[in-house]
Amino acid sequence: MPTIRSNNVVSLTTSPIKNMSFVEKVRLLDYWKIQDSALQNEFPRSHLVLMVDRRLLVTKDAPEVRMVEHSYGELKQLLGEYGLQFDLSNSCLLDALPADNDMIPLFGTSIEAADPPEDSPISKKDVLKQLGNSLGGRFTDIRMAMLTMREERQRNLLAKFQSLTKWAATYRRCPKCAAALKMRSSKSGAECVTCQRVYYPTFSPVSITLITDPTNEHALLVRHRGSAGGVFTAVAGFAHTGESMAECARREIAEEVGIEVDSIRSLDMSQPWPMPDSSLMVAHVAVANMDQKISVCPDELETAQWFSRHQVRQAMETTLADPFLKKLPLTLDDRQTLHYIPPAGAIAHQMIRKWVDGKIDCHNSRM
Amino acid sequence: MPTIRSNNVVSLTTSPIKNMSFVEKVRLLDYWKIQDSALQNEFPRSHLVLMVDRRLLVTKDAPEVRMVEHSYGELKQLLGEYGLQFDLSNSCLLDALPADNDMIPLFGTSIEAADPPEDSPISKKDVLKQLGNSLGGRFTDIRMAMLTMREERQRNLLAKFQSLTKWAATYRRCPKCAAALKMRSSKSGAECVTCQRVYYPTFSPVSITLITDPTNEHALLVRHRGSAGGVFTAVAGFAHTGESMAECARREIAEEVGIEVDSIRSLDMSQPWPMPDSSLMVAHVAVANMDQKISVCPDELETAQWFSRHQVRQAMETTLADPFLKKLPLTLDDRQTLHYIPPAGAIAHQMIRKWVDGKIDCHNSRM
Repeated sequence: MPTIRSNNVVSLTTSPIKNMSFVEKVRLLDYWKIQDSALQNEFPRSHLVLMVDRRLLVTKDAPEVRMVEHSYGELKQLLGEYGLQFDLSNSCLLDALPADNDMIPLFGTSIEAADPPEDSPISKKDVLKQLGNSLGGRFTDIRMAMLTMREERQRNLLAKFQSLTKWAATYRRCPKCAAALKMRSSKSGAECVTCQRVYYPTFSPVSITLITDPTNEHALLVRHRGSAGGVFTAVAGFAHTGESMAECARREIAEEVGIEVDSIRSLDMSQPWPMPDSSLMVAHVAVANMDQKISVCPDELETAQWFSRHQVRQAMETTLADPFLKKLPLTLDDRQTLHYIPPAGAIAHQMIRKWVDGKIDCHNSRM
Repeated sequence: MPTIRSNNVVSLTTSPIKNMSFVEKVRLLDYWKIQDSALQNEFPRSHLVLMVDRRLLVTKDAPEVRMVEHSYGELKQLLGEYGLQFDLSNSCLLDALPADNDMIPLFGTSIEAADPPEDSPISKKDVLKQLGNSLGGRFTDIRMAMLTMREERQRNLLAKFQSLTKWAATYRRCPKCAAALKMRSSKSGAECVTCQRVYYPTFSPVSITLITDPTNEHALLVRHRGSAGGVFTAVAGFAHTGESMAECARREIAEEVGIEVDSIRSLDMSQPWPMPDSSLMVAHVAVANMDQKISVCPDELETAQWFSRHQVRQAMETTLADPFLKKLPLTLDDRQTLHYIPPAGAIAHQMIRKWVDGKIDCHNSRM
């Protein structure tokens, strides 16, 4: 254990690390986040999860998609065999893990693989496949990993990994004075070397709202422009400065679907989501009259339609039976028909499932 | 009415503006936000609220604190008499207001008043007092205005005004490439003139949590370092990337108070708050055992204590009877004693009041 010097962290020596309490873990992470030298000392003892060329290393052929975790030494050696390197500069702090009678950091490392020479008999795709095998997994698309990981902890760690990696790559200069930003080793903040302003990873609250009719027997679902064919979901959008979450839900629904809702209520579910921009999605339910004329915002949506509970249940069952959406409809007509809802890793899936199972009463007063 | 050309806005000519629907208003605002030329045309027809030297113009001697609104022409003339000017560059778009059979923008304008010459017989303070009188109001501290405004709409417009003004003053250069950012006239976004990246006003979700004991008869309240003497409130903190709202609440309570909570639940209340940094506060309730040892984070808090419902009710009544906290305790001992809760404009006040009135059941399952 490092000795804790930061005066906003209580000494951790009061209890054996193997039994470190949640409070002690939180305060150790808080210390590592701001103390670069301490984190640098921990780096060679750390465990890491990996992205190469923005693709995530996950378990191979396992029923459950999970990130593959390596020790620093293992990863150094295995990547070295492919001429690949990593260091603290392309890593971000994700968590603290118990180890023996100690705690070690979990990092996310994101590296780029050089293209093989033009005359190389082997393609980059093959190289990454081999590399994945050597690392005991395979490389996959980050969005698909988010959508299909079963464990909330895995999804939230991946959301953090992707968000911090993207933020640290973007925030290099002070938006106020254009001087260089000194990035913390943890990637949890950056300070301007000239004006000393500190910037933190940016992400925004998003309202995601399941719209039901007053009978609670129908739900309004939408298809986003360019999304996979036949997949319908709930209406979501970024909160604007000066809005409450409920005002955000009401405005987004008016903007995107062209209808008015009331009885907006929190479902007490939220999920960090890292793409296209980093957000924290907060789930709501709202009620709308089905006789309102729907006019979708064409920049955002392809269509918005009311469906019966039975129709939505069928799409939910199709999605659960085909979790990777492999049988996605290809014909143009089919694309606009409800076949799927988002996979189980999406908060939209969990909201819709709750509603299908009759566990959301749109009229339930909250207090 | 401007003709709407943006293809993500439906034509507004279908209904007379005086009966403009919520959907049409939302889409008009969305159009003004991104169409600088349209907003520039509207500017001379707009209404404005005002900050001078970061102090807000509010109603004078009225029982209720409200922002004073002027027409563009009125404000131009009244400020001109003091040699003060404003234009679109120091204004941000706050709302759309019905006017006759039309809609006009509501802007927030923030200007600086020059210091009077050294040999001037009249101080700047006096100048601002006179200016306030001429403008039919007085200038006040923004935080105090947020805390004492009764109307949610007024508070949220002020939060937007303060947040956008601060953001637009900070985001001048691209954090990625350091080139100039072209700020929208509405201040709702800025685009890099070189790499075309678009940046939006930054604000973060915050969890604010009322902690009760398992009997729901006691609440744990805290005093922030440097806050007004005798004022206790709920535990709040910024969400980190990759956390759900509930995980944020649990971590913040561990970091700041050193205890573990469970049964974290949304109260379905949220409030935008513009200082010290822009945030969207989301209210929660959580349960903790009173036998846990409290160890506050000294950087953030002066103290954290359990109080009975009766003690909290007394502080609430004191606060309602003295809404501007004018009788704040001055002695050092008194500062650490519960006398007040935050004024009625704060979401903390509304949460604590709900709990005092027995309207928060800490064991109430949400579904």
